[in-house]
Amino acid sequence: MNRISNLQIYLKENRIDAAFITNPDNVFYFTGFKSNPHERLLGVMIFSEAEPFLICPQMEIPDAKAAGWNGDIVGHTDTENAMEILQHTAQKKVSSITTMAIEKSHMIVERFDAINEFFSSPTTVGIDEKINAMRVIKDAAEMEILREAAALADYAIEVAAKTIKEGITEIEVMTEVELALKKRGVTHMSFDTTVLTGDHAASPHGKTGDRKLKKGDLVLFDLGVVHKGYCSDITRTLALGEPGEEQKKVYGIVLESELAALHAVKPGVTAAELDRISREVIERAGYGEYFTHRLGHGLGISVHEFPSLHGSNDMKMEQGMVFTIEPGIYVPGSVGVRIEDDLAVTADGVEVLTNYPKELQIINN
Amino acid sequence: MNRISNLQIYLKENRIDAAFITNPDNVFYFTGFKSNPHERLLGVMIFSEAEPFLICPQMEIPDAKAAGWNGDIVGHTDTENAMEILQHTAQKKVSSITTMAIEKSHMIVERFDAINEFFSSPTTVGIDEKINAMRVIKDAAEMEILREAAALADYAIEVAAKTIKEGITEIEVMTEVELALKKRGVTHMSFDTTVLTGDHAASPHGKTGDRKLKKGDLVLFDLGVVHKGYCSDITRTLALGEPGEEQKKVYGIVLESELAALHAVKPGVTAAELDRISREVIERAGYGEYFTHRLGHGLGISVHEFPSLHGSNDMKMEQGMVFTIEPGIYVPGSVGVRIEDDLAVTADGVEVLTNYPKELQIINN
Repeated sequence: MNRISNLQIYLKENRIDAAFITNPDNVFYFTGFKSNPHERLLGVMIFSEAEPFLICPQMEIPDAKAAGWNGDIVGHTDTENAMEILQHTAQKKVSSITTMAIEKSHMIVERFDAINEFFSSPTTVGIDEKINAMRVIKDAAEMEILREAAALADYAIEVAAKTIKEGITEIEVMTEVELALKKRGVTHMSFDTTVLTGDHAASPHGKTGDRKLKKGDLVLFDLGVVHKGYCSDITRTLALGEPGEEQKKVYGIVLESELAALHAVKPGVTAAELDRISREVIERAGYGEYFTHRLGHGLGISVHEFPSLHGSNDMKMEQGMVFTIEPGIYVPGSVGVRIEDDLAVTADGVEVLTNYPKELQIINN
Repeated sequence: MNRISNLQIYLKENRIDAAFITNPDNVFYFTGFKSNPHERLLGVMIFSEAEPFLICPQMEIPDAKAAGWNGDIVGHTDTENAMEILQHTAQKKVSSITTMAIEKSHMIVERFDAINEFFSSPTTVGIDEKINAMRVIKDAAEMEILREAAALADYAIEVAAKTIKEGITEIEVMTEVELALKKRGVTHMSFDTTVLTGDHAASPHGKTGDRKLKKGDLVLFDLGVVHKGYCSDITRTLALGEPGEEQKKVYGIVLESELAALHAVKPGVTAAELDRISREVIERAGYGEYFTHRLGHGLGISVHEFPSLHGSNDMKMEQGMVFTIEPGIYVPGSVGVRIEDDLAVTADGVEVLTNYPKELQIINN
């Protein structure tokens, strides 16, 4: 229980009696049990001076144990007051909780009100930053899973390259790709798979639809899988048949931008510096106004987590951080290109987790 | 803007200056714009005495307009303070907000703190119950969409019945069913499609996996689609080849239970009464301990919404309410059966939205 011990030390140092953690991704991080409780109460209470316990719907107790949680568990049914059970269980562990840490970026006001009611309005402090700081550095076991997740994303692009052809629709291509992943045991994508063709790809919020692919189009794929609780996220833009000059030019600029940022990754460089390195390539080529989003985002249990790679984040990269780099150029009504890799910061540089080729792939199916 | 006017009257009557609504399902209900903003701010501010406005990420403004929202919109980018923009925009509408309604079951503490900071700690009141009371009664346009959503769920079961055969896995069946729906334009399921075979179906939290179907098994399907922003949710348990006596017996009891509750639906009956009617059939047959969940749940923009049909909910059914009825019997290690329909309360009874046959279907593919 290394992660729990780490948090307990933090609680002691900051004179916090207990942390009540309810974000399902964080509960998974601390307990190994991943569940979506919807409106029901799921959480782990970690004390500075006592053993933690998990609270979950009664019928999920076997699942929690099967997931490897061997600490205390207390269940609740739909007809019980879960907050009352939480308080009673906590009371058996410690005499009182005068300061409680909560996830302010997750806990809803209704539950916060209930905490105040049942725990006699403790002083509440945010635990979000501490947990983010823990989760942002991946350990060896997490890295191995993230490599596997990235390999599945690579495989998806391989399937995509074999599937695209004149006349097939975006949604049909998406279906074939997801089907191939399901056959490899993937039960969840990390977000809605995106397949956008032609100028459709120039809208960063374009939605995969009934548009038919045609020769000469670029086809943008953005997708990822959830694998053993961890996410991957890849973007590749493939050419169906020979593309036009403007398309090749834009592709080349995005590729140069992506590689420039990728090669600059090492411990000590800041998120803002990476964003600037990538953006400058695109600006120099005269397309600055068409790169309309941040460079990338952290990746792990959540598909979007810390660090955020944008121009005003001075966070320094450290060994064990995993994130995406994904510059793009979107010229409305004309062309859209994005290239995205998943990366890990190593002791002296970078490990690229996604390995599908990035040179423009001209597909003649 | 009938829904907004309805809410404005409520705000006036309760001396609330403004409601700030951020639950994406509620934003959709009031504006017609459905979006998942992740951590970004999306909301509609509705005033008792001024015109409402929508706040959303800058790049989503065209989507919001395309969705039919023709009121004011204000955008924000990732480098701006969205809460500051919210406050400035509100200030142009009304001189001050001393009482603000929020969704206590949705707003996170972090955002609540920001509301207090930027709006000088207004008195805050919950608006959840009022919105739930509005959403629980479906209008004619919503009913029509829910019928279409239910018809797509029926179609999914038809496909399922054609797909099951000896040796195919649960996950392969699931994939075929979802593929058929995608070909009919379904882009999102309302929850993860469940296919459970044999005693696997006896676990109410069983997960669709690699188990192979075999003759004599019951196969439980639980699935639904999102259609024009509204959800369906159906469960059918099919027999692959001739089932055993215990399976037929359990199926018959669940069917009797489901029909008993269904036929009791009319304005004035309470949720608790329906739950009891259904449960008594199963208890009389000696399987009471194996019906381990509530009878059903409301259905609409959310796949689980009001009303909740359980034994201690005295809410009276009214015309226009839409919900599921889904009794089940789960004998661990042996047999699992559930039958679920989507229903609407009419002026004098019930309209059943899902229409796939409920008599035990013995499939010999």
